[in-house]
Amino acid sequence: MEGVMKCSANYVPLTPISFLERAAQVYGDRTSIVYGSIKFSWEQTRERCHKLASSLVSIGISSGDVVAVISGNTPWVYELHYAVPMAGAVICNITPHYGPDILCDLLCRSNAKLVFVDDRFLDLAKDALRLLSPLRTPTLISISGASSDVPTSSAVEMDYETFLGSGDAEFKVRWPADEFNPISVCFTSGTTDAPKGVLHNHRAAFLNTIATIMLMEMAPGTIFLWTSPMYHCNGWGFVWGVAAQGGTNVILRDEATAEAVFDAIEEHGVTMLSGATPVLAMLAADRRVLSRRVSVLTGGAPPPPDVLMRMEEQGFRVTHSGGQTETYCCAVYCMRRPEWEELPRETRARLQARQGLPHLLLAQVDIKDPVTMKSVPSDGVTVGEVVYRGNNVMSGYVDRGATEEAFRGGWFHSGDLAVRHPDGYIEFKDRLLDRVERGGHTVGTLEIESVIYGHPAVIAAGVVGVSGDSEGEVLCAFVELKQGHEATTEDILEFFRQRLPDSKVPEMVVIGKIPITSTGKIQKAILREKGKEILASSSFKKEEKEMTRACDPVKEEKI
Amino acid sequence: MEGVMKCSANYVPLTPISFLERAAQVYGDRTSIVYGSIKFSWEQTRERCHKLASSLVSIGISSGDVVAVISGNTPWVYELHYAVPMAGAVICNITPHYGPDILCDLLCRSNAKLVFVDDRFLDLAKDALRLLSPLRTPTLISISGASSDVPTSSAVEMDYETFLGSGDAEFKVRWPADEFNPISVCFTSGTTDAPKGVLHNHRAAFLNTIATIMLMEMAPGTIFLWTSPMYHCNGWGFVWGVAAQGGTNVILRDEATAEAVFDAIEEHGVTMLSGATPVLAMLAADRRVLSRRVSVLTGGAPPPPDVLMRMEEQGFRVTHSGGQTETYCCAVYCMRRPEWEELPRETRARLQARQGLPHLLLAQVDIKDPVTMKSVPSDGVTVGEVVYRGNNVMSGYVDRGATEEAFRGGWFHSGDLAVRHPDGYIEFKDRLLDRVERGGHTVGTLEIESVIYGHPAVIAAGVVGVSGDSEGEVLCAFVELKQGHEATTEDILEFFRQRLPDSKVPEMVVIGKIPITSTGKIQKAILREKGKEILASSSFKKEEKEMTRACDPVKEEKI
Repeated sequence: MEGVMKCSANYVPLTPISFLERAAQVYGDRTSIVYGSIKFSWEQTRERCHKLASSLVSIGISSGDVVAVISGNTPWVYELHYAVPMAGAVICNITPHYGPDILCDLLCRSNAKLVFVDDRFLDLAKDALRLLSPLRTPTLISISGASSDVPTSSAVEMDYETFLGSGDAEFKVRWPADEFNPISVCFTSGTTDAPKGVLHNHRAAFLNTIATIMLMEMAPGTIFLWTSPMYHCNGWGFVWGVAAQGGTNVILRDEATAEAVFDAIEEHGVTMLSGATPVLAMLAADRRVLSRRVSVLTGGAPPPPDVLMRMEEQGFRVTHSGGQTETYCCAVYCMRRPEWEELPRETRARLQARQGLPHLLLAQVDIKDPVTMKSVPSDGVTVGEVVYRGNNVMSGYVDRGATEEAFRGGWFHSGDLAVRHPDGYIEFKDRLLDRVERGGHTVGTLEIESVIYGHPAVIAAGVVGVSGDSEGEVLCAFVELKQGHEATTEDILEFFRQRLPDSKVPEMVVIGKIPITSTGKIQKAILREKGKEILASSSFKKEEKEMTRACDPVKEEKI
Repeated sequence: MEGVMKCSANYVPLTPISFLERAAQVYGDRTSIVYGSIKFSWEQTRERCHKLASSLVSIGISSGDVVAVISGNTPWVYELHYAVPMAGAVICNITPHYGPDILCDLLCRSNAKLVFVDDRFLDLAKDALRLLSPLRTPTLISISGASSDVPTSSAVEMDYETFLGSGDAEFKVRWPADEFNPISVCFTSGTTDAPKGVLHNHRAAFLNTIATIMLMEMAPGTIFLWTSPMYHCNGWGFVWGVAAQGGTNVILRDEATAEAVFDAIEEHGVTMLSGATPVLAMLAADRRVLSRRVSVLTGGAPPPPDVLMRMEEQGFRVTHSGGQTETYCCAVYCMRRPEWEELPRETRARLQARQGLPHLLLAQVDIKDPVTMKSVPSDGVTVGEVVYRGNNVMSGYVDRGATEEAFRGGWFHSGDLAVRHPDGYIEFKDRLLDRVERGGHTVGTLEIESVIYGHPAVIAAGVVGVSGDSEGEVLCAFVELKQGHEATTEDILEFFRQRLPDSKVPEMVVIGKIPITSTGKIQKAILREKGKEILASSSFKKEEKEMTRACDPVKEEKI
């Protein structure tokens, strides 16, 4: 085709930066961010991001440099998600819930040149930086809670507002020369493993945002409440999505308790939020009924049917999705079918708790036998590993070897296990590392957890296998009760016995507070350690199963 | 970033073929197409397209070959839009409303290897083919109205159903190796010029579809009625969009009269349609009120405020867009602002008749002074040429020289004139060729047309300039009346005089049938010719303006 010409008129690299530029043009006077008494318009957000980007360039940040952020959700972190890519750099938003050792390791592996730190985590950041080699200590910029009401710490080089204020609003954006250039490093939450640094590119960020908008049917002007952390996969893509649809970011100043969430929904007219299962369980436990419909995106562990049913009654419309940091979160989602509306609500909740189908911008998802690499049949029974192929799959890990391993055979190997049902919907079973080997067969812990969420007194649960004798692992259920509710381990065991075959009933039940990661996932590694301790200290023996089951090893202990 | 790897796991060329593959997987049992008594599911449509693609490959169609289609809207044309790209080839859907000369020229310039022809246009196609050089005569495949109820013409090589039936449902799709590879050739409708062959690529088709879905807020399961021809920009992207959202294509067997459209809306539960101004004027004239909301995408000439107001009352929700074949139709659209709802309906209709703002997937639109190439101010007055830059801009014309001319300076030059209002919305004025030079200044014909649509007896209108003496052109208004309505040229002139400054009141009014192109645009070239004839035959002189204005040159003439 000799008339074809690829040039700036017809080929523009895809990047979410364009969402903010357009938001300022199309939705300029609408509110971009609400944070306590602070409010910005999209025009202001764009101007602030331009200034911030200009300041980054002026202190020597070059294309491809990594800029780290250690903070909870604030407007300043939102701004950095645009300003850093506008300067051609790569944003690395790290959870502030690690200790200095791990933080030092992540700053080192991401090779951060500059670190923005929320004042609340300044001591932590300094401790981490002291552990780094003096040759590669990044510059530190402190972010105070707001521009004026908190005094700047004198021990750091610069203050965020001063730094931003010195920038140029007429800054010329450094658009990516290639849409495959990296835009962010996200560390995995490390439920089963050490955190891995995942690189995403501009194209993936752009397309994944569009996919999320479409699967959530996110309308222009959506009022989005931040109940998920921005440091988890750039806020599941909503950091970019809210700008794309000219919506409003409602950011909470304090902890996202059920009360704070319900209050914010009513005060700001929130229409959408997102959260992992613990957030959903917290909202469902509150039982308050909404005055208008709120759409909720959830992912990670499947929401227990009981929680889903209660949330529907409250007025939430929950969409469940599957994916992980490496697929930029949502890759599959449980699309509702109109015919489900007529089913009994328990059946419907169970169908909706599946991870579902690929979204419009993911090329392919498959479930393959880990040995033969052949697709498993759509029988709802045969378990295989979930593999993905698509433009929202990461560019790679920061470590080349890990990338090659993950992409073997031209597919991304997720480590998640799943079945495919006859209707095509996939359902996650367990992560490979979350399966318990016992008495010669494998037990999935998700199924057992899903059962216990149906107990009226339970707000959270984690089931793990703890190394036992030659027969395999011992199945331990850790259970957290709702405030004001009571239940004994025997009550819980009885609840299991009535609903599960003998081989799946846990041998040990522990009641106490469940440790969760900063992204809202249950920290199974900690539960495994705790289980090991309890087991070692008790008189537990395989031969005395019946007795042990009835015993009450630890009650109301802080796990 | 040494961990980055670009491979099949994380980079998949964007192509609308994926929409059909996914529709079969996600919406397999839902109805894809309704056409009289014929119905297909998405699973069936995918299977038929695979078979068709396999047959194309089996007769030697190679990657990049052009396959032409001459037909109105039918399920078979819809299938060809997927089957041809699945075979790696390029679809060229040509309007069947040209004569054999032009048709021959288009087949020659697109270099078609194979032509599918609807039986109704078989004689036309054969006449056109006879004019081609015998060295490059493409193969002809006839498409009968339906698989069985119309006998196959014996004079052609193959029949569509036989051809499709011999294919392999397990065909392995030839995915594009590069997303910039061409997917279609669309000829411009040629309102002001000879038809130009526009090449679009897989990436543009994919992204433009997503943009259209988003700006129309097209929900999954949309019931789409085909009132625009598929041969115009691949049906404004809806050929791909309906599959993407697992909707249903309602295709009319006969002409899209107002009655047929309203009947189909009620019978099939239609929720969306599209059409140029003549289609809208036809629906508004019917005055039937809908039992449910129907979204309408319009474009091309701006819909007259009067038509927009009436359609809103009927229950249509009209979104107006701007663009052209070279931008794959919609590039800008008139996004409604909530604050408009409180305005008087005339004001609102006027605001909604503007072309508006760039959509989410177009990088940039600007209005530039054609001489200095500087952006015009946002004053609503200064006119400049509309230029575009974005991934939905064509790959180029089939003619290299024309491509270079159109892309000069790294922007696509549209030939459309427009202003930008202080609120950022752009409003098309006239095409460069549609401006009338008169008495030393330029008069835009769109403004005059927009006025006359407010007359209760008028259903269509076209205003052109006809070469006059040294003072410039003579302004001629051609007007078509609604059935059962009456008006004299003097009535029309008086209507103009009350609403326009003297300098813009047409000097000649002609009442009769208005010729429109197959894509629903007014054929101004024909009107100009007709105006010239009338002018030559009449006693019209510049010096006798007043007299001429009052005269009644031709009444109820077939123009």
